[in-house]
Amino acid sequence: MIASYARLKKIREAMQKQGIDIYVMVNSDPHESEYLTDYWKSVEWLSGFQGEVATIVITQELAFLWTDSRFFISGAEQLKGTPFVLKKLKIDEPPTEWILEQKNQESHPKVGGDLRVIFGEMRSLIDMDADLISGIWKKRPELPKNKIEVYPLQYDGEKAESKMQRIVEKIADASCKKALLLTALDDIAWTLNLRGSDVECTPVFLSYLLIAEDKRVLYIDPDKLTDEVINYLNIIHVETAPYEAAPLHGLEGYTLADANPVPLMKAIKNKTEIEGYRNAMLKDGIALTRFYHWLEEELNSEEEFMMNEDGTIGISGEVSELDCVKKLIEFRKEQPLYREESFPAIVAWRDHAALPHYMPTEASNSIIQGDGLLLIDTGGQYLDGTTDITRTIGVGRVSAAMKRDFTLVLKGHIRLAQAVFPTGSRGDQLDALARIDLWRDGKTYRHGTCHGVGHYLAVHEGPESVRMEHNPQQLLPGMVFSNEPAIYIQGKYGVRHENCVLVRHFDVDIDAPGSTPCEQEEQGDFLCLDTLTLCYIDTSCVDTRIMNEEEIEWLNNYNQWVYSTLAPHLDEMDRLWLGVKCQPIQ
Amino acid sequence: MIASYARLKKIREAMQKQGIDIYVMVNSDPHESEYLTDYWKSVEWLSGFQGEVATIVITQELAFLWTDSRFFISGAEQLKGTPFVLKKLKIDEPPTEWILEQKNQESHPKVGGDLRVIFGEMRSLIDMDADLISGIWKKRPELPKNKIEVYPLQYDGEKAESKMQRIVEKIADASCKKALLLTALDDIAWTLNLRGSDVECTPVFLSYLLIAEDKRVLYIDPDKLTDEVINYLNIIHVETAPYEAAPLHGLEGYTLADANPVPLMKAIKNKTEIEGYRNAMLKDGIALTRFYHWLEEELNSEEEFMMNEDGTIGISGEVSELDCVKKLIEFRKEQPLYREESFPAIVAWRDHAALPHYMPTEASNSIIQGDGLLLIDTGGQYLDGTTDITRTIGVGRVSAAMKRDFTLVLKGHIRLAQAVFPTGSRGDQLDALARIDLWRDGKTYRHGTCHGVGHYLAVHEGPESVRMEHNPQQLLPGMVFSNEPAIYIQGKYGVRHENCVLVRHFDVDIDAPGSTPCEQEEQGDFLCLDTLTLCYIDTSCVDTRIMNEEEIEWLNNYNQWVYSTLAPHLDEMDRLWLGVKCQPIQ
Repeated sequence: MIASYARLKKIREAMQKQGIDIYVMVNSDPHESEYLTDYWKSVEWLSGFQGEVATIVITQELAFLWTDSRFFISGAEQLKGTPFVLKKLKIDEPPTEWILEQKNQESHPKVGGDLRVIFGEMRSLIDMDADLISGIWKKRPELPKNKIEVYPLQYDGEKAESKMQRIVEKIADASCKKALLLTALDDIAWTLNLRGSDVECTPVFLSYLLIAEDKRVLYIDPDKLTDEVINYLNIIHVETAPYEAAPLHGLEGYTLADANPVPLMKAIKNKTEIEGYRNAMLKDGIALTRFYHWLEEELNSEEEFMMNEDGTIGISGEVSELDCVKKLIEFRKEQPLYREESFPAIVAWRDHAALPHYMPTEASNSIIQGDGLLLIDTGGQYLDGTTDITRTIGVGRVSAAMKRDFTLVLKGHIRLAQAVFPTGSRGDQLDALARIDLWRDGKTYRHGTCHGVGHYLAVHEGPESVRMEHNPQQLLPGMVFSNEPAIYIQGKYGVRHENCVLVRHFDVDIDAPGSTPCEQEEQGDFLCLDTLTLCYIDTSCVDTRIMNEEEIEWLNNYNQWVYSTLAPHLDEMDRLWLGVKCQPIQ
Repeated sequence: MIASYARLKKIREAMQKQGIDIYVMVNSDPHESEYLTDYWKSVEWLSGFQGEVATIVITQELAFLWTDSRFFISGAEQLKGTPFVLKKLKIDEPPTEWILEQKNQESHPKVGGDLRVIFGEMRSLIDMDADLISGIWKKRPELPKNKIEVYPLQYDGEKAESKMQRIVEKIADASCKKALLLTALDDIAWTLNLRGSDVECTPVFLSYLLIAEDKRVLYIDPDKLTDEVINYLNIIHVETAPYEAAPLHGLEGYTLADANPVPLMKAIKNKTEIEGYRNAMLKDGIALTRFYHWLEEELNSEEEFMMNEDGTIGISGEVSELDCVKKLIEFRKEQPLYREESFPAIVAWRDHAALPHYMPTEASNSIIQGDGLLLIDTGGQYLDGTTDITRTIGVGRVSAAMKRDFTLVLKGHIRLAQAVFPTGSRGDQLDALARIDLWRDGKTYRHGTCHGVGHYLAVHEGPESVRMEHNPQQLLPGMVFSNEPAIYIQGKYGVRHENCVLVRHFDVDIDAPGSTPCEQEEQGDFLCLDTLTLCYIDTSCVDTRIMNEEEIEWLNNYNQWVYSTLAPHLDEMDRLWLGVKCQPIQ
């Protein structure tokens, strides 16, 4: 990318003009969103880097970009031919330490950065609040003016007034007047029962929301408000004010609450939301069945030359990763209340699947042919729920090593899916259940096992997680999260099995044969997981020699449940095909 | 206990005299030891309570004793007939909060306590340092004057000079002169390669140790030093000073180090120590085999009346819990380098085993007869290592429910014993491996799964643990800890299976059939556990229907290893008997 040299040069000129020795850019927005609206994609504009985590540090001589392990390989590719040197988080010295070292030198360099998007430790290192980008990025996109919409109560199940009342109670403090300033866009959308379209894959809208016992203010560009929304905000007693007027540093007469209760409130889904997930999973399952049936037929069809629409000669019977992406969207679009993908689709053939966050592009797009494993991780935003599912399927002949790894990952998935755990358990206590089979083969995966899934909101949400890192958040009934152990064999293949699960109370079957007749209260209350996702698991890649009876039973029961639930909604050809896929194995 | 009324009355009189409204006593010593020397057993002297965790709070009207769940049942028993009301930690309001509430009242009561033994949050609530006990406790034992001894290098493997040098390097700080004041008795014994006998079951001695680059001082009663030890201390450049002179609040010219590196250094055992554990386990295994063989013969022998040594009529063929305690010590004493028990023996028949920390007394002592489960948790202090082992054995007919629970606990023990985990893993990540089978039956145990085991030191040591609660300490090669899942069915029975394990590097067998030929470095380094304890597991209580093949294989391999390792050291009758016990099951 030659453009990045020219742009970097202009930034360095601006730095000199303003007396900035070190300029910091972070791939973030004022709301610390995972997916950014185009206005904030300045890291990509400058460097071409497309990963979600990036910190750029520029001096007159150096240009570094730090990212995390998910993007080491794709990042190196994307930064080729640019002036940026890739630095690896958790391996190289972190950017904050690097800057601190510079600042401690005799020259005492001055550090600049756009404080609208720099948070945490880095923020304290910035000497000068400076947006050097807007003046250079001539075609910088505008902040979006997309209209927002009221999210119907039939899908949400709790009125905004009730949510705000609960929030006020949670932040209440006898000693002072408390106010909560919500900055995370999904927190705001959830609280107000409003949705927007400012960010791809997540139905949120740029805004801030202030909540106090006697004051509720939505800070938003007024162009985004329809008459319906203005009326709705009146009814729920929420004033509006300009986006730029948000009291980020406090509001006179109020003490800003430190702790934000909304992420946990949002994570505990109510009955309406859970019902919505089940509907969305059913529709997603129908679309996925149709897709995988289509895919198998395409892969099995004879290749033949044919005339493309534009007059060129193409090959029919060839399916690429991007073809799958398109087709998945097509099938999902047939389903009621479907809006958009819940994240950019991952369709990864062979070695592409060894990159946990690979996304096919025109440049990388592979034709799926020959033998190997195909990993497909996609999801849908339906008005009644959000889905996130990964399947790995075998194409052609699958090696013994692939089958072994496929099965080890599946064993982990099953052990977690079947887990029962005492009330009060944290996710980090359960993480190893999904990993121990891989560990005993000397293998692991470097990402979390589970992330929270929003309800027609962000596909990744907190505060719960199941991962190796400590997270003090307890798992609570009503939480919905992914279950996605995996293995990545660099340069060869990847396997991931992902379903969404719901935390619910576990009823001990005290009449079960051989069960000890002890008082339940003596042992305490237990929780368990209900799998929500409805899509067959490819049994052709399973190495049954390393599965125990109970695991095979789980797999057969799961596929049988998928079949019996989806069958009434499928046409005959899809139904017959799914029936074969769901046949029990021994 | 009528004595406790009289003693409490005298304390209340002393409180009035000194103007103390609330008097606090904690079952502790100045070194925060787990087991106390008699001088510090004032809680037991006053209340009769024998549990390890106790906080007493006394006012003119009230007398409370707080303890934790391990001692709820035995504590209630022991406090019967005393003026003390039992309060339950984690259920009732904690003592610090109760005191804080009193202090916030208008009367502003004054709180007194012996600051030599009160630490943590409670310490900050004490207004007046007051030892009201010594004046009342006429026969208060003296602080011990037991001689200490040099611990030979052949058992320790690292010279004290080397340890102190490593400590000095770890606490070093360029900006000031650092000193470390060691107060934990096992830290001091480990650092200096000295051992004592001031506390039962743990070979430590009352002292403090100050370590700085240019100064090493052992604060100790000079009566405890032999000429040999005085000479040794000279050689390793350690001065001595009176115990009472320990600079608890700092030393002029030095900054006291906050972080104590010794617990982690001590937890990572060197080759000599590991070799010593293996020797000690072998000897312990011989003693245990002889014990369990003896026990089985006693239980199977005909009961007959016989003349006791003292002329009374007894019943031979009757074995009590306390008989087992004595016999275990007898058999262990036959082994070279045996010194004493590593903790007071738990021999628990039937419902006694439902109390995790039951210890038989003359009052509670049961005769082992009829049908049921017998739980025996004991350990030995050998000069070359410390052991800690629990076995649960069936006596007579064992019910299906007991067998199911016995097997569920065993499955957890085996899963943890077989665990492989990435370098950097914490114990709390592994804890669930030992519990998930129980959890799926709606059962759990409320203590940790693993505690560190000292090397001819405390049988319970840190900093590592495997438990539900978060512990940031990584597991590291060379750590030795217990593996002891359990289940307790109140009023009925208890099951615990405990072996000691060693953390070591795991070598992936990349030539194993079906193993993926991936680069090891890609996946990282792994650790695993070696089981050290050598004693058969009773297969007669195993419900093989709920064991999978791999678990049965582990059990058979373990018992086979026990047999083949111990057999050469057993006489013929014991060897034949053990051979039967270790026969593989299907």
